[in-house]
Amino acid sequence: MARGVLFVMSGPSGTGKGTICERLLANENNNIFLSISSTTRGIRKGEVDGVTYNYTTVENFEKMIADGEMLEYAEYNGNYYGTPRRAVADMLSSGRNVLLEIEVQGALKVKNIFPDAILMFVIPPSMKELKNRLTDRGRESEEQILKRMETAKWEFTKSPLYNHIFINDDLDECVKEVETVMRNESAKRDLVDKLISEQY
Amino acid sequence: MARGVLFVMSGPSGTGKGTICERLLANENNNIFLSISSTTRGIRKGEVDGVTYNYTTVENFEKMIADGEMLEYAEYNGNYYGTPRRAVADMLSSGRNVLLEIEVQGALKVKNIFPDAILMFVIPPSMKELKNRLTDRGRESEEQILKRMETAKWEFTKSPLYNHIFINDDLDECVKEVETVMRNESAKRDLVDKLISEQY
Repeated sequence: MARGVLFVMSGPSGTGKGTICERLLANENNNIFLSISSTTRGIRKGEVDGVTYNYTTVENFEKMIADGEMLEYAEYNGNYYGTPRRAVADMLSSGRNVLLEIEVQGALKVKNIFPDAILMFVIPPSMKELKNRLTDRGRESEEQILKRMETAKWEFTKSPLYNHIFINDDLDECVKEVETVMRNESAKRDLVDKLISEQY
Repeated sequence: MARGVLFVMSGPSGTGKGTICERLLANENNNIFLSISSTTRGIRKGEVDGVTYNYTTVENFEKMIADGEMLEYAEYNGNYYGTPRRAVADMLSSGRNVLLEIEVQGALKVKNIFPDAILMFVIPPSMKELKNRLTDRGRESEEQILKRMETAKWEFTKSPLYNHIFINDDLDECVKEVETVMRNESAKRDLVDKLISEQY
């Protein structure tokens, strides 16, 4: 069975990368899955251990961080949330493509751990458009938005380290372009695996 | 002025990467140049210093190797030939795209020195086809060809570290595909530079 491909999606706040990821996951033809995150927060009604999250202790979570077993993690409301390396590796070897939506520094760290990960970066058509989108969401102050814009500029300087850059001007077009790239990457990986095992 | 993009082309012997590079260089629309190599061999009639090669001494060449100033180099018939980092950097900052055709280990070294280099890898449609092409060239013994085939398999395992993989089934189609990718990469770099400098 063909190995899955690890795709990592980054891009400044307001570029629409979250929406793009939702659309990619919703299309079953993409064979894309999210890896199950680990968390130290308690299980809630309706959640299923090993499905919603893998629930674990703070001690265990911090040991995984120390051992370099967390691809990326964050603390939120006093609880840890993170992506274990092994969970991703298991999904890839079972032939599933995995999608991680993470910020630039985390993405570059993932690339060090999985050098054959495909890094994808979403950019807006212009800074004005990015500002409009952040403003239209109406969630943040002018000051917070300007800070996000400056962060975006720093993130853009890292985009040449990514495998693919996508301009999110029209959402439907952008999703189609990402899907095409994902399919091509998977097909080429399969061909390379075939070449490596081919008798001659 | 927009910065140039550094493109690196690799691929096993017999995949046609040399021919692809010639075609890319021959098309002026691509704005692609070879960097001028340095050599320690003497200047020959009809050659021009700084055009055909940069001619230098063994002592100087070996100092450049020691200082990490040679992106890649080889010894051939007792003379050194190599690509100085600075020559490439100068062409990029003058807005020219640079194309290097180098083997896998050299390419990965270049990526370390120029992290925003675009690495391109050419693969054959099948191992049988690769063997046919190597045999048709009629330059090597069966044993040499089999050794090249094994080297090719090792090189394939490194292809996921490249930005783009191209299947050279039909030469014209393949060159077109490479040119499209190069144009897209240049355009996206320009857009990113524009975003970084854009007032909002």
